[in-house]
Amino acid sequence: MSEEQDAGDYLIAPNPKAGRLTRMVTGIDHEGQSMDLSVVEERPLTIFLNGQEIVTAMTIGDYPEYLALGFLRNQGMLRDGETVKGVDYDEDLETVVVRTDGQTTYEEKLKKKTRTSGCAVGTVFGDMMEGLEDARLPDLGVNTSDLYSLAARINRTPSLYLEAGAIHGTVLCQGDRPLVYMEDVGRHNAVDKIAGWMLSEGVSPDDKLLYTTGRLTSEMVIKTALMGIPALASRSGFTAWGVEIAQQVGLTLIGRMRGRRFVCLSGAERLVWDADPAAIEEEDRKHRRKSAS
Amino acid sequence: MSEEQDAGDYLIAPNPKAGRLTRMVTGIDHEGQSMDLSVVEERPLTIFLNGQEIVTAMTIGDYPEYLALGFLRNQGMLRDGETVKGVDYDEDLETVVVRTDGQTTYEEKLKKKTRTSGCAVGTVFGDMMEGLEDARLPDLGVNTSDLYSLAARINRTPSLYLEAGAIHGTVLCQGDRPLVYMEDVGRHNAVDKIAGWMLSEGVSPDDKLLYTTGRLTSEMVIKTALMGIPALASRSGFTAWGVEIAQQVGLTLIGRMRGRRFVCLSGAERLVWDADPAAIEEEDRKHRRKSAS
Repeated sequence: MSEEQDAGDYLIAPNPKAGRLTRMVTGIDHEGQSMDLSVVEERPLTIFLNGQEIVTAMTIGDYPEYLALGFLRNQGMLRDGETVKGVDYDEDLETVVVRTDGQTTYEEKLKKKTRTSGCAVGTVFGDMMEGLEDARLPDLGVNTSDLYSLAARINRTPSLYLEAGAIHGTVLCQGDRPLVYMEDVGRHNAVDKIAGWMLSEGVSPDDKLLYTTGRLTSEMVIKTALMGIPALASRSGFTAWGVEIAQQVGLTLIGRMRGRRFVCLSGAERLVWDADPAAIEEEDRKHRRKSAS
Repeated sequence: MSEEQDAGDYLIAPNPKAGRLTRMVTGIDHEGQSMDLSVVEERPLTIFLNGQEIVTAMTIGDYPEYLALGFLRNQGMLRDGETVKGVDYDEDLETVVVRTDGQTTYEEKLKKKTRTSGCAVGTVFGDMMEGLEDARLPDLGVNTSDLYSLAARINRTPSLYLEAGAIHGTVLCQGDRPLVYMEDVGRHNAVDKIAGWMLSEGVSPDDKLLYTTGRLTSEMVIKTALMGIPALASRSGFTAWGVEIAQQVGLTLIGRMRGRRFVCLSGAERLVWDADPAAIEEEDRKHRRKSAS
């Protein structure tokens, strides 16, 4: 399968040739020679919920509306059944305003919080954990053959990572098919953009798997569980708290996926062992990811 | 030089054998076999400035006092000449309180800000840029031979990364000597711990270089410049805004350092070309870092 055909199969694929996302910079290499390097962009984007400034995220700048929606949703600031009246992106002001009907629960909470401590930063994490108690993740068989196909296809998909490096990717998958592949300088932004897309399109999480190039930290695990997705796989490693939360909520957590190897530290009962690891090719040098970090 | 001798040369080196920083987790590998994996810890730490709750950071949990001090300093919440009266860490409450004389400028700003928008998250980045205008980075010759020695020594130093992966490292260096090597699940925490150590010990930044395993983003560049360190080197890549800010403040920015290769995208005039790249060994497989991400 050629790379072009593969990218054509996605609902949303990276667009590494979009001029706005990378910049050519001239520098000097280790031999003192002048060289040109393609470097990813990084822009501030301030997210508002109605009249309330919530956060300034550093982002590559594509899909600002999905990023804002997904961020607010994953932080528990947009609850189930809340109607989004509009999402307005202003490129010059570098802002997105998400408008809902009336005051949200979050705005009430924020007021209470700011009276006691003056700042809401500390509440954000608490609110995320709160939503988790209600998380009920669906049953889903995860074929190991699909894990291998997904990893191979995602690695070979033309991306900003292959073009310029220094970027994270997250991919929403169904069976052996990668559906939506988002990239961003912040790994949480890539996940939030997928959450925003799912919310906008009314996509069910029940039969989905999330693949990320980033580490399986508590925040990544929490976001995946809040999105209702029952399985999370990564090229990278784990943190202990990430594993602990995954076990608590019954999320299937697969890490260190490289070539034929992977490790599953939570929810292994969902795995369907239909592939022979010995028959899987190791990654070739070109597609082996180095540290995006 | 053996690994043990190398680690002994540091003022602070990683302590991969400290039980509190990693945990053994049992899982299943790609062949369906049970396996034990060493996984890094990740804990919340809430930082207070006097009576004000500032942020909850996710951290591996070593050096909480340095992390709090360095974070507040790098966010412009502790200014030059401000006297720190005490730093109190409470392990059970997972809090650090930094005490200064009276109200800080930051607390005044925060009050003003919370009146208009209710939350201070958005101010943090603005405040960091503000401090930058006054940044005057010292002259320093950076020998390319030192860059190569540092990278080789740091890669071979026993670390949580080599033990458990999924972690970032940042190292304060002087000439060819790595002085303080901090690791953390968040790359900014590792830098902040170094800033806190420098502040506590009254260490001059003038003849130092900062080495990081993480990407050279705007935030990493800003923190380095605010710390007054004239050179920043990384195994990883760049973002365009990171490069732009480095060029504005005159920071020497070196990325993609692997084996004999590197790229300098800002401040190349500080480089002293005293090494022959052809004589530098490529990284062996064991010490080649994969994605910490």
